[in-house]
Amino acid sequence: MPDPFRELRDQLRAFAAERDWDQFHSPRNLATALAVEAAELLEPFQWLDEAQARDQPAATRAAVEEEMADVLLYLVRLADRLDVDLERAAKAKIARNADKYPVERARGSSRKYDEI
Amino acid sequence: MPDPFRELRDQLRAFAAERDWDQFHSPRNLATALAVEAAELLEPFQWLDEAQARDQPAATRAAVEEEMADVLLYLVRLADRLDVDLERAAKAKIARNADKYPVERARGSSRKYDEI
Amino acid sequence: MPDPFRELRDQLRAFAAERDWDQFHSPRNLATALAVEAAELLEPFQWLDEAQARDQPAATRAAVEEEMADVLLYLVRLADRLDVDLERAAKAKIARNADKYPVERARGSSRKYDEI
Amino acid sequence: MPDPFRELRDQLRAFAAERDWDQFHSPRNLATALAVEAAELLEPFQWLDEAQARDQPAATRAAVEEEMADVLLYLVRLADRLDVDLERAAKAKIARNADKYPVERARGSSRKYDEI
Repeated sequence: MPDPFRELRDQLRAFAAERDWDQFHSPRNLATALAVEAAELLEPFQWLDEAQARDQPAATRAAVEEEMADVLLYLVRLADRLDVDLERAAKAKIARNADKYPVERARGSSRKYDEI
Repeated sequence: MPDPFRELRDQLRAFAAERDWDQFHSPRNLATALAVEAAELLEPFQWLDEAQARDQPAATRAAVEEEMADVLLYLVRLADRLDVDLERAAKAKIARNADKYPVERARGSSRKYDEI
Repeated sequence: MPDPFRELRDQLRAFAAERDWDQFHSPRNLATALAVEAAELLEPFQWLDEAQARDQPAATRAAVEEEMADVLLYLVRLADRLDVDLERAAKAKIARNADKYPVERARGSSRKYDEI
Repeated sequence: MPDPFRELRDQLRAFAAERDWDQFHSPRNLATALAVEAAELLEPFQWLDEAQARDQPAATRAAVEEEMADVLLYLVRLADRLDVDLERAAKAKIARNADKYPVERARGSSRKYDEI
């Protein structure tokens, strides 16, 4: 089975190369685009109370799924430009989080690691 | 080879379950956390001109890699809570983008699809 | 009584001039800094449920007030660089919102204007 | 001359009261809306290089002005809900920044205060 991160990276590379878009895909521009998409993903939730957020209508859901895809695509593209191995970085971060949030002290708390 | 999206999803599920954190991981909270991390990823670029952004120092680079991991982890966790298949959604978005940005009209332009 | 927007604008102009910071205060850089600060303002709310968000502790409150100040300062500085009259723009937007959200149709609804 | 912050606050209070919108205007919801608007303000800059950002076309400029108004309106409304005096907070922050960035050490540098 092919690695999906590598597949997405290669598809995005080809997409940008065909359109001569590498010139626009500086790390800064990609990080900016990613932040804009993350805010668009947040937008449908902004006025919802907790019960409403759980029972989101189907129309909003399709938009949310598309914004999630945009976030992932910019993240994969940024990782390619910066030569970051996303899967490795994510697993390393989970390991660091396990150190920062030991089960016995973090259980049932939403506090930050320096407050538990 | 295991699917890395599934692996990350399962690791984050176990991480949250051990700490009784599902109660905090509503879609809205996760979308908020993702937007906050995306802005933290943008932060080291905010005052750089283009030449500086290309030659980022190593210290910033480690921070950038960690923020990218945070974005991916919240995205995978949100996808799990909303039952979104990230890989499928990303490939569907690439296909839609290929329709919106035909090679011959989009080449060398950073305009939006409704302006090309 | 002096106009506070003008006062803040003049103080920020002098602050930047003394430090030779105009070179960094391009509209894009300021818009980026503003978005980063807005996300930092959001950060203390990200894991709170509604009851908790109402009863925010004093420590968080001081941080929130400081982030709000940062947002205002970058907004005033950006307005100066783009020659935007913030007070006039805000009043014009309230008038537009009054048209988009007529009292009788918008009452008690958090829907967007194109859905009411 | 009336204080523009107070005027905007009072207009937004009346606007929300007439529409029974106080129920939606929790601090968290307002902070979220502000972050979303700040990202929309950033959006027109995301693919521009520095020269382009300086010579922004008029169409983009009107959108930028409107997003700046949105940011200010949510900021004023949030300040009202949290009982924050924006003008006082902004001036206090300028004073703190003057301490953190002494002229002789900060001149011509975009580094953070803990790196100068």
